[in-house]
Amino acid sequence: MRPITEEKFESILEFLEENKIDVLMITDYENSRNVNLQYLSGHPTDATILINSGGETTLIPWDVLLAEKHSEVDEIINPANFSFNVFLAMKELFENRWKKSSITVGVHSTTSYGLIVKMKAIIPGIRYFEEPIVIQQFFEKLRATKTDFEIKKLIGAAQIGNKTIKDIHDFCVNDPDGTEKDLSFLVRKKLADYGAEDVAFEPLVANSSRAHEIHQHPFASDQKFSLPGLALIDFGAKFQGYCSDITVPISFGKLSDNQNKIRELTIKAYEAAIETIDIDVPLWKIHDTAEQILKKGGFEMPYSLGHGLGLTVHDSPFISRKPTDDYSKKHWKEETIQDGMVFTIEPGVFKQGLGGQRLENDVLIRNGKVEIITKSQPFTVM
Amino acid sequence: MRPITEEKFESILEFLEENKIDVLMITDYENSRNVNLQYLSGHPTDATILINSGGETTLIPWDVLLAEKHSEVDEIINPANFSFNVFLAMKELFENRWKKSSITVGVHSTTSYGLIVKMKAIIPGIRYFEEPIVIQQFFEKLRATKTDFEIKKLIGAAQIGNKTIKDIHDFCVNDPDGTEKDLSFLVRKKLADYGAEDVAFEPLVANSSRAHEIHQHPFASDQKFSLPGLALIDFGAKFQGYCSDITVPISFGKLSDNQNKIRELTIKAYEAAIETIDIDVPLWKIHDTAEQILKKGGFEMPYSLGHGLGLTVHDSPFISRKPTDDYSKKHWKEETIQDGMVFTIEPGVFKQGLGGQRLENDVLIRNGKVEIITKSQPFTVM
Repeated sequence: MRPITEEKFESILEFLEENKIDVLMITDYENSRNVNLQYLSGHPTDATILINSGGETTLIPWDVLLAEKHSEVDEIINPANFSFNVFLAMKELFENRWKKSSITVGVHSTTSYGLIVKMKAIIPGIRYFEEPIVIQQFFEKLRATKTDFEIKKLIGAAQIGNKTIKDIHDFCVNDPDGTEKDLSFLVRKKLADYGAEDVAFEPLVANSSRAHEIHQHPFASDQKFSLPGLALIDFGAKFQGYCSDITVPISFGKLSDNQNKIRELTIKAYEAAIETIDIDVPLWKIHDTAEQILKKGGFEMPYSLGHGLGLTVHDSPFISRKPTDDYSKKHWKEETIQDGMVFTIEPGVFKQGLGGQRLENDVLIRNGKVEIITKSQPFTVM
Repeated sequence: MRPITEEKFESILEFLEENKIDVLMITDYENSRNVNLQYLSGHPTDATILINSGGETTLIPWDVLLAEKHSEVDEIINPANFSFNVFLAMKELFENRWKKSSITVGVHSTTSYGLIVKMKAIIPGIRYFEEPIVIQQFFEKLRATKTDFEIKKLIGAAQIGNKTIKDIHDFCVNDPDGTEKDLSFLVRKKLADYGAEDVAFEPLVANSSRAHEIHQHPFASDQKFSLPGLALIDFGAKFQGYCSDITVPISFGKLSDNQNKIRELTIKAYEAAIETIDIDVPLWKIHDTAEQILKKGGFEMPYSLGHGLGLTVHDSPFISRKPTDDYSKKHWKEETIQDGMVFTIEPGVFKQGLGGQRLENDVLIRNGKVEIITKSQPFTVM
């Protein structure tokens, strides 16, 4: 089943008409993933979907059997009939069946440049819609608010994550010699036991010697997790295709004054950001509230305060600063908190030598109210 | 340490000169990964690297501390000095430091189209080298043969995989009620126990009801693995950054005549392909040998026979059919087997209702000889 509603699908056709786009093309391949494929078609992976201005949907999948099982489209084209060459399949469709000698194709920002150049060489009648960012932003807006169908799954993913927090706590208390990798395996196993089909992303497990890194590399190491100082684990469940994302900040042993300051600053920024959230509040203001607190405390925030959750773990909306270059400013529209949004709030403070703390929970806006649907809170093991 | 050798690095500068490219740009970000970043710089992830025609290397990483630890470049630019905007950092570099009012940038095929359009809008003096496929193919050729440093790691990854085959066998024999997910967890755990830092990819575990899918979705299910018929597991280790890739075909119980045919055809295609491999043999011929056998047996091969192994699990060289459209034909050069290549051979036959078989091992070409460095073979559990 495709997650998009009929009403939202209609808005795509209006968008195509307004922008004089004949056909919208979304591609999802290795190294160039685009979850809008799944959102529009129900088909999970490795395919091209075309939506023409009349609303016809055509899928050219790698695996036709998979498409027959999962997709909800008007037509599936078998690439085997075109020597597994998706461009030849499209050429036949545009030129011989749609009888178009010239066609304006709207492609998403994430489409690879190599594909853009190659497709134009094989199908010379193609003209690209010139502003892929406009298409990207349209889909960000479309997917920023979730339907009830999606919210149910997002709450499921959050609850699976919540159960796992207890196991993380027990590991920290009962297994002082356990490594980062041990904790990573435990979390992966528990998420599956509680009903996740997968992790939402590879858990980031960092003891105090690694917790200052933004995204740990490697994700988890063979070092002991419970080194004295500021540690964290960042993990999430994938449940029926939808993601949760939780970071638990943990401190081991007696902290120095500077470490206590990092911990308290993180909590303060988190609480202030949560306090700011309300219907119609601009997203950048929420980011800014946290960032100003961290800056006053003497720290940079090298990433955005939060991101939406959905079919991907980094979904829209994005809770981030205002744009900083003229091009982005030109295309920027102020977005505000709306019913149906589901997103993370995750301020953090990181300092090599002292460790790092990030407090992250998932927030749902429903019936005008702010619900915190995950239950992370800092804890201490002496 | 960067995996590229000095000699290969010099060939990049020759390539830039021949093609009149002022600066080569490789970007690696979420949804648009490019392992050439790591190959050229040692830095593992989330950054842009620039190499100018004079051989100067500049890295703009997301995480500067990570870059200081891993990268081997002439300069690291801190994006915090440019509001975390990589385009503003590049604008400053090109215009104010390099004093270039016009600059030809060579970008890799996998760069996203959105980035291409946005960068040009922010840095109007940019001209793009028009054939990203030429840059892609140059890097494919560069990375198709491995150095001794890389081969050692690839053999390490293969050996870790080999040890795990025994555990897969024991699971199939001793745990008739075990699920696909149980086997997936076991493989992940054993790979780690034997020294892998990670899986090379999420293991594909498919009982006879799912083994006809090309790439299983989901990767592993809650169903019992040992259903009667043709099953398979496709897995690999990541060891010091390098990948192995192994598929073990397994049959449970007494097979039907059609199932026996699938099994025998797979083995026949595999053995014929291996037999064909020799120094200077064109890669397409190896693919074709296997494909013709499968076609005569009445089956399509919906993918390429094999792919290189390296920092990614789908590395160059690609053991695939000749191109099928004019654009690809124009850019195609016949590649042949050379010393230093490491790649998979993995023919398979898949049929809904009967299951699927794929036999996959990793091949190393060293001192003119063909070495099969993984040890998968079909086995039967009655």
